[in-house]
Amino acid sequence: MAITIAIDCMGGDHGPRVTVPAALAAIERHPELSVVLVGREDELRPLLKGDAGGRVAVRHASEVVAMDESPALALRGKKDSSMRVAVNLVKSGEAQGCISAGNTGALMAISRFVLKTLPGIDRPAICTTLPTVKGHVHVLDLGANVDSGPEHLLQFAVMGTTLVAAVEHKERPTVGLLNIGEEEIKGNEVVKQAADLLRASGLNFVGNVEGDGVYMGDADVVVCDGFVGNVALKISEGLAQMLATFLRQEFKKNLFTKLAALTALPVLNAFKRRADHRRYNGACLLGLKGVVVKSHGSADVFAFGNAIGVALETAANGVIERISERMAAMAAPQENA
Amino acid sequence: MAITIAIDCMGGDHGPRVTVPAALAAIERHPELSVVLVGREDELRPLLKGDAGGRVAVRHASEVVAMDESPALALRGKKDSSMRVAVNLVKSGEAQGCISAGNTGALMAISRFVLKTLPGIDRPAICTTLPTVKGHVHVLDLGANVDSGPEHLLQFAVMGTTLVAAVEHKERPTVGLLNIGEEEIKGNEVVKQAADLLRASGLNFVGNVEGDGVYMGDADVVVCDGFVGNVALKISEGLAQMLATFLRQEFKKNLFTKLAALTALPVLNAFKRRADHRRYNGACLLGLKGVVVKSHGSADVFAFGNAIGVALETAANGVIERISERMAAMAAPQENA
Repeated sequence: MAITIAIDCMGGDHGPRVTVPAALAAIERHPELSVVLVGREDELRPLLKGDAGGRVAVRHASEVVAMDESPALALRGKKDSSMRVAVNLVKSGEAQGCISAGNTGALMAISRFVLKTLPGIDRPAICTTLPTVKGHVHVLDLGANVDSGPEHLLQFAVMGTTLVAAVEHKERPTVGLLNIGEEEIKGNEVVKQAADLLRASGLNFVGNVEGDGVYMGDADVVVCDGFVGNVALKISEGLAQMLATFLRQEFKKNLFTKLAALTALPVLNAFKRRADHRRYNGACLLGLKGVVVKSHGSADVFAFGNAIGVALETAANGVIERISERMAAMAAPQENA
Repeated sequence: MAITIAIDCMGGDHGPRVTVPAALAAIERHPELSVVLVGREDELRPLLKGDAGGRVAVRHASEVVAMDESPALALRGKKDSSMRVAVNLVKSGEAQGCISAGNTGALMAISRFVLKTLPGIDRPAICTTLPTVKGHVHVLDLGANVDSGPEHLLQFAVMGTTLVAAVEHKERPTVGLLNIGEEEIKGNEVVKQAADLLRASGLNFVGNVEGDGVYMGDADVVVCDGFVGNVALKISEGLAQMLATFLRQEFKKNLFTKLAALTALPVLNAFKRRADHRRYNGACLLGLKGVVVKSHGSADVFAFGNAIGVALETAANGVIERISERMAAMAAPQENA
């Protein structure tokens, strides 16, 4: 099945010099993929090579949403931004998904305005994949929603498990609720009520997952409020960066350690590849009437290419339709009973 | 100045075979330290060697709080638990601080009941040290309080900065508010209001710190709700464990990688020492009328010894008195104005 992904080529810290090569590499890797490169035509055209079998189109957009721009201003003031035009292509059906490395808040605001949320979904959630000891885990929400209520956490669980079921062809993915365990009061009020909802939901709910359980692979999907999820994600980035710094410093200490580094280089590189966060780049904005993927702003060609892969997979496996069906089925339990 | 620390020798996963050797090592390391070993005398006595210059006393306690026991039951039902007796020794003034590797919830409940909180402090907070690229950071709360209000976050900031000022002899430690940065709505309501309070507090408030900023050393003290802090701490433990597993697996892959490991061993060990979470063992329960330190339940002799060091430092530097003075000064700004 042919899938077209609209790419906001101007977003992110590096713009076209990352997004365009990543898109060209992606169409070589995925024969079913076509791309629409959205952005300033005069900047994009020079970066193209050949016609790639007609699978690369360019759509001019005159404006660019800045990384630090207010989402409200980006939404109201820049109707011809590359981000907006990419989302519009999903709305019109010309693309089956879109991707941007731009401003998260603006992408969320534009996507909600243009595409709207699915019936039964109050607000979209940001869902990403993280590595675990056993494989990987999908975590949501990572910052689209703060002060989420129990019913939101339930919606996240439905969306996350549906995504995993569709993309990984798992029958009943397990879902856990991010919670704290050892304390006097176990969890806050929202989490306690969410646990009740999840137990009654018919989902494969495995109960609470503590912070360390996320990376131990205790569940296929872990749900949490966006504030907590964002802190968890960023603190992981910080810790990984710190440990990498420590390791590098120790190997650079003196001649002997530098020689040791040389010997250990292939092993260290294999380790680096395995823990490489760029492999996990590409977060889905779930709950919209269309596939929207957010890439890390600092993504390089390799990382941005992986995020394009996420958009392709999400679109190809009918994730939106499946979430929509699932929400409809959950909204009508009385009639079915 | 001589300092006596009461040690709950029965708590934690390993009990006396970790706590007693750790205590004996600590009094060798710290000439100003005396310890009261609290627990079943028949289990503790055989582990002692000599009289250590009269700096080791044993106090019999007939009961033990189980790791999974309900805090309410431990508080009401076990008046002669080693944990309770250790806290009682602080209350009576026989010890200037106590430490336990037992059940966190029970330790918190018993400490609050026996010692009470300081004037102006609604609930104690758990404060620990974490390594950073630049040195280390104190983070609180790590799970004593969920659904903290803005005024609680302010109290945490006062307690954390006072601790750092006292123990590290820093004039005006910087304090940051753990928040999320890139999103449509920056932070939740509580955090926004807490930022206002912190700006007006006279503390050296440096604004929001994102998850990654914690390990980058963006502030001396980082405050957050206990739910968020606990998730951040546990997710860090999980990630570190996963990365260690990956590194080990890569070095064990084949004969070549095993040889590389051998060459790199001194470097890897130096790295391990530097990132060793055991060095940071020992969390203060701040806000009580007495020094109470919680060790990780799984602590070994090295880790438990470090937690004893935390109790000693906290007591020796008059942290409780200084927090008390600071809270009193903040409560009476009108009269001073």
